[in-house]
Amino acid sequence: MRCEVVAVGSELLLGQINDTNSSWIGQELSAVGIDSFFQTKVGDNPDRMIEVIEQALRRSDAVITTGGLGPTQDDITRDAIAAVMGVELEFDEELAAKIEDLWGSRGREMPANNRLQARIPAGASPIPVQPGTAPGIVAVFDFEGESKVIYCVPGVPWEMREMMNGFIISDIVERSGMTAIIRSRTLRTWGTSESALAEQLAEEIERLDGAGSADGGVTLAFLASGMEGLKVRITAKGPDEDTVQQMLADQEARVRDIIGPIVFGLDDQTMESVVLDLCAEQGLTLGTAESLTGGLIAQRLTSTPGSSRAFRGGVITYATEVKTAVLGVPDGPSVSEEMVEAMALGVCERLGADVSVATTGVAGPDSWEGIPPGTVWIATCVDGEVETQLLRYKTDRVRIQNYTTITVLDALRKRLIARTA
Amino acid sequence: MRCEVVAVGSELLLGQINDTNSSWIGQELSAVGIDSFFQTKVGDNPDRMIEVIEQALRRSDAVITTGGLGPTQDDITRDAIAAVMGVELEFDEELAAKIEDLWGSRGREMPANNRLQARIPAGASPIPVQPGTAPGIVAVFDFEGESKVIYCVPGVPWEMREMMNGFIISDIVERSGMTAIIRSRTLRTWGTSESALAEQLAEEIERLDGAGSADGGVTLAFLASGMEGLKVRITAKGPDEDTVQQMLADQEARVRDIIGPIVFGLDDQTMESVVLDLCAEQGLTLGTAESLTGGLIAQRLTSTPGSSRAFRGGVITYATEVKTAVLGVPDGPSVSEEMVEAMALGVCERLGADVSVATTGVAGPDSWEGIPPGTVWIATCVDGEVETQLLRYKTDRVRIQNYTTITVLDALRKRLIARTA
Repeated sequence: MRCEVVAVGSELLLGQINDTNSSWIGQELSAVGIDSFFQTKVGDNPDRMIEVIEQALRRSDAVITTGGLGPTQDDITRDAIAAVMGVELEFDEELAAKIEDLWGSRGREMPANNRLQARIPAGASPIPVQPGTAPGIVAVFDFEGESKVIYCVPGVPWEMREMMNGFIISDIVERSGMTAIIRSRTLRTWGTSESALAEQLAEEIERLDGAGSADGGVTLAFLASGMEGLKVRITAKGPDEDTVQQMLADQEARVRDIIGPIVFGLDDQTMESVVLDLCAEQGLTLGTAESLTGGLIAQRLTSTPGSSRAFRGGVITYATEVKTAVLGVPDGPSVSEEMVEAMALGVCERLGADVSVATTGVAGPDSWEGIPPGTVWIATCVDGEVETQLLRYKTDRVRIQNYTTITVLDALRKRLIARTA
Repeated sequence: MRCEVVAVGSELLLGQINDTNSSWIGQELSAVGIDSFFQTKVGDNPDRMIEVIEQALRRSDAVITTGGLGPTQDDITRDAIAAVMGVELEFDEELAAKIEDLWGSRGREMPANNRLQARIPAGASPIPVQPGTAPGIVAVFDFEGESKVIYCVPGVPWEMREMMNGFIISDIVERSGMTAIIRSRTLRTWGTSESALAEQLAEEIERLDGAGSADGGVTLAFLASGMEGLKVRITAKGPDEDTVQQMLADQEARVRDIIGPIVFGLDDQTMESVVLDLCAEQGLTLGTAESLTGGLIAQRLTSTPGSSRAFRGGVITYATEVKTAVLGVPDGPSVSEEMVEAMALGVCERLGADVSVATTGVAGPDSWEGIPPGTVWIATCVDGEVETQLLRYKTDRVRIQNYTTITVLDALRKRLIARTA
């Protein structure tokens, strides 16, 4: 089964908005075993839209379009699909009433234009999941002698995702004739390189490749995710939900046996959400003392909903005198083990926090007092005991700050786990 | 002149990396008057690459490919281009020596594989700008009876951008036969809606439309940039550099006459870089006291290189007691004008900063002590005088934190400008 993605909108071609929908859809399709070989961006032009959609239908079994479903004159995906199907747009009274209700439930009156969104190509249907006011469209029809399916979803990412997860993925899997169920689980790791990870898991991957259908089709894949570490995705294919969940659980246990210590979370968890959860579970409050990271640690913690359960506050000591004035840290070299240790202790004391993390170093681009950029001291304080570590990075300012943030939170994570072990 | 973009790489289709190159190229092409009607992503598969590139050549005059120029077996853009041109790859000894030199200049020995990057389709040339170790390729050739040009650049964004800015844009403009020079300048604004901005500038846009070629082709465009405000882009087209620069300056002055107070910067400037520059110019140090924004203000300031010229440090008072303990703020309701005022004063005092910003409020998703999410107090302190403002947002946590950050920095920006006026 092949499925192409067509992202509609002149603003995507002009770089005013980055198309992130296509990649996300490609990722989700690949997780359930559907190939997506081409992804095309096209502007709000009827002829070019029809050209691209027809071509996609010719070389694939299914097409997903994103965007162009709004109520303005520029939104012409509905018209293009009708043209490709060779039918007219029909006004769907029931759908119009539903859209009007959705506006009403948000305490707003529907602008007259939005009635246009209730027009659907003859023979097509609204997608049954409708998270926003814009309905999606699904149509199964004969195209040049073959049966094809097309799904149209809005360009707004969360609306698109809800339609994908709530309807399209399962519909497309069903149409593909696959009777198997495919599920995946992602293990998030920190602290190793892609080649080292591949080496550690090589034997396990070989075993899975050799196992073939005997092991019901469990596969492992590595996904680099930029500054956020490496992901190991386990995908399992089996006859029913229970079997597949058991396969995932077994495989997760096997992977954890090999790389357990570097796995910090699952699926949507982040390093900061994991650390906050551990603190909350153990009834501990957390403080931060940041020099090099300049507020990034606190910002990442507080952008997690519910962070106030554990996060107490932090101090950003950018100028050296501030370290002394606010944290009561004794005079001394700013980038040193003594300094980062005093910062971690000082912030627990001043803020009344049970545990803390601290960072100091040179973010660059320039050296500072002869110390090269990328020289970083980190510390964690748990139960009054401080542990420190020296890091050396050879990369740019933003990466140095981000790597340091995740590394020091990971150090705290390990200590919190050890604390109750 | 039409130019398509083809982004090569299976990792783009699988969502492991987001293709941001195509949008950026589209934006740059549109700024010089080149249309980019289609952008396609295709995997590392020879047949599908050739299919996509040939189609792009059929419907456009020029094609830019990104990616697939590395030294591994997956990197087959060179081979695909040779196949499309109907020629062989030829080994370019001079280019191989250059690549080897580049490795040497970084103190590293070139792996043997990288010699493969010196193979160029017969009749094509290396792109004269080569920022990294991967050379780009430019080829002008007859395709199905018409002369076409193809540019191949690496997928690494900075290498791609340097080749675009240093060679491709001017080469493509020259080939298009345009003798005019096109330049643009972007005014960044904060504090108004897109419709209000459009209304304020409607008369000016009408004047420019009416002026036609008499005014040498100056145009205005609005670009929404998500959480970072609205951009007004002035594009001018004229016979030579001096004329065009004068046109840009004149038009910028006209736009500033109308919307001056909301323009905070130009082109690559950010709100934080502008505020840091103003502080540094006036010899002032800056401190932050953050509750609602949880470190975001400090993080944005310190991710700007050179922030230590002015930024002294900050305090994140997430738990109420921390406000009192660290800032010496008197007891009282946490989300109030009195509190934010005391925070702004307290941080100047404790950190020895000349000016400060402070935020408190409810980021959500839940209400706090009966106060709805999106209720925000901000304050700025300049020369010991505090000014406060109440903001009310109806949006999500991340936006509330970001909008508050930019708004309070903008308030400080205006006071710093007024200070020397």
